[in-house]
Amino acid sequence: MARTSIATVCLSGTLEDRLDAAGAAGFDAVEIFENDLIAAASTPEQIRARVADLGLTISLYQPFRDAEGAPAERFAAVRRRMTAKLDLMARLGADTVLICSSVAPDTIDDDDLAAEQLRTLAELADDRGMRIAYEALAWGRHVSTWQRSWEIVRRAGHPALGLCLDSFHVLSRTDQYADIAGIPGDRVFFLQLADAPRLSMDVLQWSRHHRLFPLQGSLDLVGFTKAVLATGYRGPLSLEVFNDVFRQADPHRTAVDARRSLTALQDCLDGGGFPASSLTGLAFTELGVDADSGPQMEALLGALGFTHSGQHRSKPVQLWEQGDARILLNSGVGEAAISAFALESSDPEAAARRAAHLHARPLPRRRRQREADLTAVAAPDGTAVFFCRTEPVGEHGWLDDFLPTGEPRALSTGITAIDHLSLAQPFDRYDEAALFYRAVLGLTDDEAGEFAAPFGLVRTLAIRNADRSVRVALSVPVLRRGDWAPAIPHPQHITLATDDLPRTAAALAAAGMILPIPANYYDDLDARISAPAAVRRLGVMYDEDEHGSYWQLFTPVIGSRVFVEVVQRVGDYRGYGFANDPVRMAAHRQQRLREEIKD
Amino acid sequence: MARTSIATVCLSGTLEDRLDAAGAAGFDAVEIFENDLIAAASTPEQIRARVADLGLTISLYQPFRDAEGAPAERFAAVRRRMTAKLDLMARLGADTVLICSSVAPDTIDDDDLAAEQLRTLAELADDRGMRIAYEALAWGRHVSTWQRSWEIVRRAGHPALGLCLDSFHVLSRTDQYADIAGIPGDRVFFLQLADAPRLSMDVLQWSRHHRLFPLQGSLDLVGFTKAVLATGYRGPLSLEVFNDVFRQADPHRTAVDARRSLTALQDCLDGGGFPASSLTGLAFTELGVDADSGPQMEALLGALGFTHSGQHRSKPVQLWEQGDARILLNSGVGEAAISAFALESSDPEAAARRAAHLHARPLPRRRRQREADLTAVAAPDGTAVFFCRTEPVGEHGWLDDFLPTGEPRALSTGITAIDHLSLAQPFDRYDEAALFYRAVLGLTDDEAGEFAAPFGLVRTLAIRNADRSVRVALSVPVLRRGDWAPAIPHPQHITLATDDLPRTAAALAAAGMILPIPANYYDDLDARISAPAAVRRLGVMYDEDEHGSYWQLFTPVIGSRVFVEVVQRVGDYRGYGFANDPVRMAAHRQQRLREEIKD
Repeated sequence: MARTSIATVCLSGTLEDRLDAAGAAGFDAVEIFENDLIAAASTPEQIRARVADLGLTISLYQPFRDAEGAPAERFAAVRRRMTAKLDLMARLGADTVLICSSVAPDTIDDDDLAAEQLRTLAELADDRGMRIAYEALAWGRHVSTWQRSWEIVRRAGHPALGLCLDSFHVLSRTDQYADIAGIPGDRVFFLQLADAPRLSMDVLQWSRHHRLFPLQGSLDLVGFTKAVLATGYRGPLSLEVFNDVFRQADPHRTAVDARRSLTALQDCLDGGGFPASSLTGLAFTELGVDADSGPQMEALLGALGFTHSGQHRSKPVQLWEQGDARILLNSGVGEAAISAFALESSDPEAAARRAAHLHARPLPRRRRQREADLTAVAAPDGTAVFFCRTEPVGEHGWLDDFLPTGEPRALSTGITAIDHLSLAQPFDRYDEAALFYRAVLGLTDDEAGEFAAPFGLVRTLAIRNADRSVRVALSVPVLRRGDWAPAIPHPQHITLATDDLPRTAAALAAAGMILPIPANYYDDLDARISAPAAVRRLGVMYDEDEHGSYWQLFTPVIGSRVFVEVVQRVGDYRGYGFANDPVRMAAHRQQRLREEIKD
Repeated sequence: MARTSIATVCLSGTLEDRLDAAGAAGFDAVEIFENDLIAAASTPEQIRARVADLGLTISLYQPFRDAEGAPAERFAAVRRRMTAKLDLMARLGADTVLICSSVAPDTIDDDDLAAEQLRTLAELADDRGMRIAYEALAWGRHVSTWQRSWEIVRRAGHPALGLCLDSFHVLSRTDQYADIAGIPGDRVFFLQLADAPRLSMDVLQWSRHHRLFPLQGSLDLVGFTKAVLATGYRGPLSLEVFNDVFRQADPHRTAVDARRSLTALQDCLDGGGFPASSLTGLAFTELGVDADSGPQMEALLGALGFTHSGQHRSKPVQLWEQGDARILLNSGVGEAAISAFALESSDPEAAARRAAHLHARPLPRRRRQREADLTAVAAPDGTAVFFCRTEPVGEHGWLDDFLPTGEPRALSTGITAIDHLSLAQPFDRYDEAALFYRAVLGLTDDEAGEFAAPFGLVRTLAIRNADRSVRVALSVPVLRRGDWAPAIPHPQHITLATDDLPRTAAALAAAGMILPIPANYYDDLDARISAPAAVRRLGVMYDEDEHGSYWQLFTPVIGSRVFVEVVQRVGDYRGYGFANDPVRMAAHRQQRLREEIKD
């Protein structure tokens, strides 16, 4: 298992805040980013002591800029500056400094000069038992590829000068990294890892604002890391991620997210990908209800043909069932939203161990004697995720925690199961949540998008297991919402599957619980496609793909932040109807305005 | 004066919210963006009535996509769709529809076919007394330049088919727009205006996320608009701006900002640029103080050598003076920050008229008899901006509102004037504020930048008048801050100029009111440049440019959000020391932590 390291620039706060967060997340080492040190009130000796107290070491001091290819008169200043930084490193207890390739306009394009100057600096480092790792910036003035940086290191031929390889600088420019494996491992002094979404933009801006932790983006981190490890490199895997959101988020959360990315990456290196998921379905979904929303949700579930079949032995939790759909109403956890969901697993204990291994926050088990032992972890937004195997009643599974109410089974309205869960995420948790669902739960990306909603752009990511029996749709505002937007936080929802949408629609309509969809929507639909006439008549929304069609009904928002969607998939439609979301959001806004007028 | 129009897509909220905002801001017309209409609960007839009630007309219905170059079988569907949309427009009372050039993969690259199909659609429109404006998207599949869209319109040769010109689509691709002036004006049916910062990125993403209102970005809106008007075009100037921040901000604020951009643009068209500023300096700066911060600020001003020279006749406001620096402490307006500043003007009434003309929100005049009549407007962040001419005492100027305290003149510590004001802006007001300071006050951009502060990226924009007697530095977080960042809102500050920094520093040190700067900062400074030894000794921060050097002292934050900076400019240094801001911010954070420990 390689050592793990994180650059302080990945995190938010003062240097001291950042070190504390890296230590608490269980990293082995930190790269000290120069600007973070300069702004720190602590002396280098105090930082050294704090790093040691936190169980960390300093893997790298960085960056040292505009060193090689300097005109002679400027190189004298470079030498002086390097001497000062090496003295500082001695005080810090750091032994490796990063030199990134020059960007200065006066840089001379001459590999021999660069090699000679780097050798001179390496001698200064060597005198102190230190060493220099040289890295090609993707936007370096003359040196911008790993091949050229390696050529210069090779020409310099000094044991205290080696290479730093950075996944972003290499993969942002080329897919040609396989030959890295041919570099002698002892000449690779450092490995920096960053992922990123594929963006078509200036590489410097891309690097400075949009880097992500490994497996959060689209670069081939697994292939790249394997190539570097194939050299024989035995140094740390070190994260260096510049990201506008991470720079202003709680560093303790970010550090755990970062640590998870490295564990997940190592799992992929070992196995060639994430281990297969043991998940086989959704056992139940729990909504938190209060005195207002509880009765409304009970009325809604009743109208939908659910039966209140059980009552928890010790907690204020109702079990409602129809087909394979099971919904718990919990009046002991506060306001209405999806407070928990339970995933069916062929091996719940293994699923829980996997979650713990990937740094998921375990939730306390609060069970009484005779109650089922369900393990749970917190998703990034705080939702409780349980792992279970639903045993038939009488087999000591979680269903036995519920006392039968004896209520007669209601007449079904066609609901067969929960199709998927839509979990609205806080603005700054998109990438963290995506990695959590991919790595911890072993789900894979299904569909990602972005749309203009009435109160700002929204990003979506649907994620699922292989047979689509577990589907989760994440959605987040692209910017943190301010005072103006009325829909804070935007609602969560449960999407139920029906095999008889007209019947479900009739039942909901009879109860007055269908969200009205504007006629303008149907006029546009008719202008664009030949949608079945039933779409308008039933008051549903409609989507189609090459496999089939999707019929969507929505209820009003119940309480402050949850609603129910009912869908019928016709043929083999695979999407989630995201394109209809802006219209649905405006309709929910309209519902709220009508309620405000009534009040 | 051309009619003014705004596309609903520029604003946030439901369609009804957006129409209300456009009407309230005084626009003449709106473009109805199709997706906004589709999501609206109102019928087209209700929208038509609301538009009329608001004193608006509908200038354009848009966009109609993938019309021209369609294979025959698809064109039948295009025709059907156009018919439905023209029927919808009749209900809305709109007479012009925008067709943007096709992006569909099956589009046929044939100008004659495109012309023929557009002519067919124009006939449909003409039958209803309507017309079609055809626009080249910068990323159109085959038609992506104004020249080609014009060639197709020319070939079609139908009176109901004309051109839509969009500044972004043209200027994002080329500087060659002068020939537009040669198009017959009656063939230009519509003019859409959007500015943008110059970004090196995919043009579609640039367009969808980063457009700005005219004069907020770097495109040549003035030259482009002149070229279009030179055709004889007499339609509206219509804004179409896709911007992530505007999409989620209060539409009433955004609409005023938008309206201001068009007025300012028209002023530039008339005059070749903004009218010259009549501003000649800063008359005073007012700080809002409370029971805690008032005495602290008095102590600080006293230590700095200010004299409490006057007391307002009717309000709880103290006047403090030293050299040309005048600071008012107002204990009647709440917490400590820069609550107001007054600009010296050679013609205050003209400056106030200009502000009103540019839609600045006037503030009520609250003066008593015998008090000076100062006109004031609100800056985007709510700061009151006064225009005045400071007359000597006894000449009935604002100074006469203050009764002399008779306190003896304090011993100067070298302070000569207020160098500049640093106004931290809310996250979503950067572009609005920049345009306000440029257009309303007639200031010009001096220096713009972005730096990584301890709690997230910060953008800065310094702005000034010609002789640098009025300088304002704006700073905003790049993302809206969340719970984690402790510095919400980040502090404002007054920067005082001294001609004897050692004396000022000694006075502040004696009072224990210098913010300590970390030794790491000086170690780095020494490693990088040969800064004078006095920098470290005096505990100041230091910057230099090709004209001179800049010496900066900071006080701790007083109360919740204001501090004082003292600077000496040596030689002709022209900057603001922005590069030192992250270190200063970390030092202020450290100060707060120390205070918390003490408390």
